Amino acid sequence: MTRRTARDAPRAGLDVKTTRADPQPADFTDVRATNLAVVLRHLRANGPSSRAAIAASTGLNKATVSSLTGALLDQRLLRETGSSGNRIGRPGTALALDGSAYAAIGLQMTADRLTAVAVDFAGDQILLWHRHLDGAPATEAPPSHTPASASPASAPGAPASGGLAPGSRGGHATIRPGRMISALVALAQRAATRVRQQGRHVVGITVAAPGLISDDGTVQLSPSLGWENVDLRELLSGSLRRPGLDVTVTNHAGVAAIAELRHGDHAVKSDLTYVTGAAGVEAGIVVDGRLVHGSRGFTGQIGQFRLGPVGSPTLADLAGIEQLVRRALPGLTPAALTDLTPAVEQVANQARAGDPDTLAALQDTGCHLGQGLALLANLVNPEVIVLGDHYATLAEWILPSAEAELTRNTLAPSAGGTRLAASRLGLHAAALGGAVTHLDRIDTGALPAAAH
Amino acid sequence: MTRRTARDAPRAGLDVKTTRADPQPADFTDVRATNLAVVLRHLRANGPSSRAAIAASTGLNKATVSSLTGALLDQRLLRETGSSGNRIGRPGTALALDGSAYAAIGLQMTADRLTAVAVDFAGDQILLWHRHLDGAPATEAPPSHTPASASPASAPGAPASGGLAPGSRGGHATIRPGRMISALVALAQRAATRVRQQGRHVVGITVAAPGLISDDGTVQLSPSLGWENVDLRELLSGSLRRPGLDVTVTNHAGVAAIAELRHGDHAVKSDLTYVTGAAGVEAGIVVDGRLVHGSRGFTGQIGQFRLGPVGSPTLADLAGIEQLVRRALPGLTPAALTDLTPAVEQVANQARAGDPDTLAALQDTGCHLGQGLALLANLVNPEVIVLGDHYATLAEWILPSAEAELTRNTLAPSAGGTRLAASRLGLHAAALGGAVTHLDRIDTGALPAAAH
Repeated sequence: MTRRTARDAPRAGLDVKTTRADPQPADFTDVRATNLAVVLRHLRANGPSSRAAIAASTGLNKATVSSLTGALLDQRLLRETGSSGNRIGRPGTALALDGSAYAAIGLQMTADRLTAVAVDFAGDQILLWHRHLDGAPATEAPPSHTPASASPASAPGAPASGGLAPGSRGGHATIRPGRMISALVALAQRAATRVRQQGRHVVGITVAAPGLISDDGTVQLSPSLGWENVDLRELLSGSLRRPGLDVTVTNHAGVAAIAELRHGDHAVKSDLTYVTGAAGVEAGIVVDGRLVHGSRGFTGQIGQFRLGPVGSPTLADLAGIEQLVRRALPGLTPAALTDLTPAVEQVANQARAGDPDTLAALQDTGCHLGQGLALLANLVNPEVIVLGDHYATLAEWILPSAEAELTRNTLAPSAGGTRLAASRLGLHAAALGGAVTHLDRIDTGALPAAAH
Repeated sequence: MTRRTARDAPRAGLDVKTTRADPQPADFTDVRATNLAVVLRHLRANGPSSRAAIAASTGLNKATVSSLTGALLDQRLLRETGSSGNRIGRPGTALALDGSAYAAIGLQMTADRLTAVAVDFAGDQILLWHRHLDGAPATEAPPSHTPASASPASAPGAPASGGLAPGSRGGHATIRPGRMISALVALAQRAATRVRQQGRHVVGITVAAPGLISDDGTVQLSPSLGWENVDLRELLSGSLRRPGLDVTVTNHAGVAAIAELRHGDHAVKSDLTYVTGAAGVEAGIVVDGRLVHGSRGFTGQIGQFRLGPVGSPTLADLAGIEQLVRRALPGLTPAALTDLTPAVEQVANQARAGDPDTLAALQDTGCHLGQGLALLANLVNPEVIVLGDHYATLAEWILPSAEAELTRNTLAPSAGGTRLAASRLGLHAAALGGAVTHLDRIDTGALPAAAH
């Protein structure tokens, strides 16, 4: 299990938002929450600091800092450590974020796989589970399938129920919402139980899904799941044994971008785009340190980019991971392709072995991807575009042609400074980001109800 | 001359930025500037208000409000008016933004035309001049041309110097930087003199130009001007008689988007994109009430979008105003097309007369534009995409096919709520936005040096 600490969070990533923030009256009644947030963000960005150092860096006076940190210590959001992590002010007892009392859970879903992550308040990842949705082919819907058990007791890693919708949508896998929700509930319950066994309070659960997710947590349209108008948040909340639990449903690329901003190693202050190939091709666009939400939250659908007039193939058709796998593994029947992850590993192995057809397929994927990413460079000019999940696994062979086409198709010289990079967060960046966004709410000064 | 008052500014457009702002420590030393900004923004958003109303709405206490408004009255940024513009608190003397002491100048340049606008601090437009750059054909570079006078004394509307570069770039007009700068300086000097004659201090000049403008005011690349690496800001500052004057150079679509957000009538809170056809096709993208700047400021280049693989035509080729004019006015020789504005009027007249070829050309332009705008809807999902300048003149005939293609090419139903609208700010939105952005700096609490 990888451990990521608060210090991993790019300091500037938080500072930028503060420095660009608009003025707030200085005697609003929420000054206390405001200042609690200032202290928490300082420690998240800089790691353990003495009270004096916090006062010096934030501009808050020492009495205020002592009162604020006292409240945060009482709430077990902070702990005292031996010595100060930095040299500002005289050395003394340092304060650090305390991960022992609170954690958030992030779930990530595609038609073939569920992932659960838990992150404590200090930013440490304390749980990571993957579950393959047995019998959900990634390329078409086979005949009806025996529902497997989805009881909360089922062991992590064991097949979750993978019931299938009658029809297939756009050649993508389809999985009936009822089955998916049973599997999600089982995994969520189990993760929550594990977190509580460790003595932590679960502040919330975020589910990251592909496609268009409206603000009320409805999956409006998800071609890769074959879903339309599924009120996922409502259905999940109703099925959990603790209905009080705060459940959020959001697009997977968006929260993965947040995870890259906080836990990635791109030295990016504010402008980053994450591209996922886990289900179609979608992007999470961060501008000024904030995820672009748009009018209704329907952003990042770069896979819809049509390389040609209406009727010609889309970026998802030409640069999608499924399409790459089918081309690189011609022997694999659609029905046999029930999990993209091992298939992508096999493609990587063939590339390592120097198989010419595989290398050609990877290069073409990179070319088309680069043409699509040039749109992002020309329109929003991010500092870095992070190739996520399966693209990261194959980055060694995709990046060269992708970079060439990105530069070639961007008006600004050298792509306007937009870099391409492979994610190092693995296949669970969206789940990680989902958990992180829940903890962010505490960072804004909205302290959780006392642990129970 | 149109008059636009502070009340035109969408209230929410300002509120959104405040409500989404990140926490600031409550005892920073810049509390005063912060609170000055809060008062100014309140009045800009809500119009004349009594001190009591300001205190009630902002959360600032009355003593603080009295002290702040006193300082702003002394600086002639506020004035007292007869009665309160709103009903909060007991009626009393109302305070309003005072436009009599300060104004900013916005200049807008394309290869064929210069525009100057001045806006006073109250938000009223007090000057609007257009100058046609005689002899700068919009389609190709003719043989060398007698430089016209560019003395500051030359009357507005008279031809400015339109010297031409030897070669043409990408079939676009080219104008030698030296000539353009002489014309810009002449217009800027004259506008500044006029503003000063009215007793106002000029707080700054913003020049809005097409293409890639770096943060230091260099035109890195502008296909429509035929410029590469022209340090426009430096050259302008050096040529002005008052070198102290604060000069900014920025992309025209971006500041036009700001103008739409403040002075347009789209009831948009935070997410708006402005599309200009004045020189190629460029977009100004506003997210969360802020212009997307990106890594190096090279954003909004939607004209680069290639409808097909490398080598196929770009959106600018298929939906550009120049290309439309050439198709709709086949009789017009390239050399004769020296000013897009009258040519676009002629196209509109032919459309009104029901000329079938003209209507077909307009419909095709709309179709291709709609395909390009679907990119914006799929990626950033704005509340509204505003068709600016020449597109607005022709909106009656372009919008129907553009809307159909936008909806058809956006994954979310009904384009994810993204509306298309025609700008009502005319051909000078970029100049207006340029002036407005200068006044914004005062709104952040950075009060100008006392008028001289």
